[in-house]
Amino acid sequence: MGKIILTGDRPTGKLHLGHYVGSLRRRVELQNAGDFDRMFVFMADVQALTDNADNPEKIRQNIIEVALDYLSAGLDPEKCTLFIQSQIPELAELTTYLMNLITVSRVQRNPTVKTEIKMRNFEANIPLGFFCYPVSQAADIALFKATTVPAGEDQEPMIEVTRELVRRFNQTYSEVLVEPEIMLPENATARRLPGTDGKEKMSKSLGNCIYLSDSAAEVWKKVKKMSNGAPRMSMDEPGNLEGNAVFTYLEAFSTPDDFAEFWPEYKTLEELKDHYVRGGIGDGTTKKFLNNVLNKMLEPIRERRAEYEKDIPEIYNILRKGSEAARETAAQTMDEVRRAMQIDYFNDAALIQQQAEKFRK
Amino acid sequence: MGKIILTGDRPTGKLHLGHYVGSLRRRVELQNAGDFDRMFVFMADVQALTDNADNPEKIRQNIIEVALDYLSAGLDPEKCTLFIQSQIPELAELTTYLMNLITVSRVQRNPTVKTEIKMRNFEANIPLGFFCYPVSQAADIALFKATTVPAGEDQEPMIEVTRELVRRFNQTYSEVLVEPEIMLPENATARRLPGTDGKEKMSKSLGNCIYLSDSAAEVWKKVKKMSNGAPRMSMDEPGNLEGNAVFTYLEAFSTPDDFAEFWPEYKTLEELKDHYVRGGIGDGTTKKFLNNVLNKMLEPIRERRAEYEKDIPEIYNILRKGSEAARETAAQTMDEVRRAMQIDYFNDAALIQQQAEKFRK
Repeated sequence: MGKIILTGDRPTGKLHLGHYVGSLRRRVELQNAGDFDRMFVFMADVQALTDNADNPEKIRQNIIEVALDYLSAGLDPEKCTLFIQSQIPELAELTTYLMNLITVSRVQRNPTVKTEIKMRNFEANIPLGFFCYPVSQAADIALFKATTVPAGEDQEPMIEVTRELVRRFNQTYSEVLVEPEIMLPENATARRLPGTDGKEKMSKSLGNCIYLSDSAAEVWKKVKKMSNGAPRMSMDEPGNLEGNAVFTYLEAFSTPDDFAEFWPEYKTLEELKDHYVRGGIGDGTTKKFLNNVLNKMLEPIRERRAEYEKDIPEIYNILRKGSEAARETAAQTMDEVRRAMQIDYFNDAALIQQQAEKFRK
Repeated sequence: MGKIILTGDRPTGKLHLGHYVGSLRRRVELQNAGDFDRMFVFMADVQALTDNADNPEKIRQNIIEVALDYLSAGLDPEKCTLFIQSQIPELAELTTYLMNLITVSRVQRNPTVKTEIKMRNFEANIPLGFFCYPVSQAADIALFKATTVPAGEDQEPMIEVTRELVRRFNQTYSEVLVEPEIMLPENATARRLPGTDGKEKMSKSLGNCIYLSDSAAEVWKKVKKMSNGAPRMSMDEPGNLEGNAVFTYLEAFSTPDDFAEFWPEYKTLEELKDHYVRGGIGDGTTKKFLNNVLNKMLEPIRERRAEYEKDIPEIYNILRKGSEAARETAAQTMDEVRRAMQIDYFNDAALIQQQAEKFRK
């Protein structure tokens, strides 16, 4: 059996550089490398509803934003299957059966769930759907028999739950599902890109995001305001890399090509850093360089976005076709699941025969 | 909107007199009264799997037993829709969305769940699926827009959860689901028929059941051994009604017609009781009477069963057709649910239009 890649995002807002560097860029590379049998990328609207049940409008508005972000970042519906989670009811069905193979306390102990519950101030009032999301996430992965899940480090405990559930299912019934592996970002900085404030993760509510859909003017406005760590009186003082978001971003995004093009005095980021910590480089200059680096990366994304925005009904069409294709795979796995669980009674000629004989006696 | 009746049983064993008197007999009466728009009776195999995940074979074997019990008790597939829960994947889908509208602690506080967890010695190791079953049970009811759920008193807290979830859904999205009412057994004794030991509820594991499929010989064997409460030295001593299962059963099953036919010395159970507590009636005699009463009731059931057992494939056929019919209703409700939640993106021309305009600006 070959490699099957699956990833997704909750469509609760436009995608930002954190998403891009943490997973989307990698997805596009994986897609273009073509070293897989199938690649699925989906919008997790069902999961988003677990803590936005009273605001489906937010999700509804953001589906198209995320779809545009995907397509403009370079995901190609000819090469990977783009779909919307809620359009695959088989996910709910598999979730139901996997929930029987895990205990309440095992879910409670999951560190990702603990953090998320804390982050959302749920305490005693956790919606049951939210509490169960590790299992529904396992179903997302298992239903498509994904072998490879590109995701951040924070998702490791979730993938471990998936692996456990897959093993439990295969042991209890028969070998149908596949244990996935997580594929972490190669670049350590990319694993946890901070917001423009240099502190927290990028988050819409903290207002520290640069979006893939930001214009060049918006990006420059945000870069200008970025944190440089401890303040200096003049550029001649030694620069500080600690808490310096500009350098963290350069770490994540800049390439030797960028230096050749925009700042040929330095060949690599290491050279620039050396000089910066000795003193003599102004923060305005590093920000201009970062702005060039980001815009060089974002410009082709913006251009593709502008094209896609011209025909929104076609975006829905792409998602509909992707969802139909994903559902075919999902239905096939669920047939195997039901057969393995021996609950496809009406298609089970041996069962009907056996029962008929039992009552003939 | 008219009356829609829905009930079901977990197919984990043959049905016994407790099931019959607590719900099945009533269902048949309701069916024959015809005072409803639709009646659904289902085998809850998905629910049975929540605490039998490693033993689907048990459920598989008992589906046909329960179906035979239903049909021989008088449920008529022409008048009510008989179906198997697992064949309606829409149930899992609705469960997923309802789980977002209830908190973990609300489920934890449910007295039925508490009792069931205790009964099964689950303690910390409750399967998540089992823990969530109040919600999946609510989905069973809500998906078919049932107005009326004939069930025992112990199910009242579960129906209350359903009513809450229906209200929450209708408030959050729009008025799609229907609040059900519980319909308790009219006869107080029928609400909690003890086993032949006179103590606990009938339960396969306690070996205190009389099954609908028991032969006349088996019934007599079990009736002979029934508890008469405190033992007497002779029949002349006053009889004791306390813990006297024979009289509890007579309370639940005997009619004035039975007295006329089998024991014309008494017109009613009250007359017999009066004499019994005064002394002078042997327990063997009351047992013979009970045996006659039970067999008069069970004989037509046995005869119908013998007929149905001759063509087992036809039973599966009945269940398949019923499941298909139930699924049609289920699919219709789910369409309304998705529309109410605004997640039927691809059929939502207004959404596509609105988004297209947004990006045109």
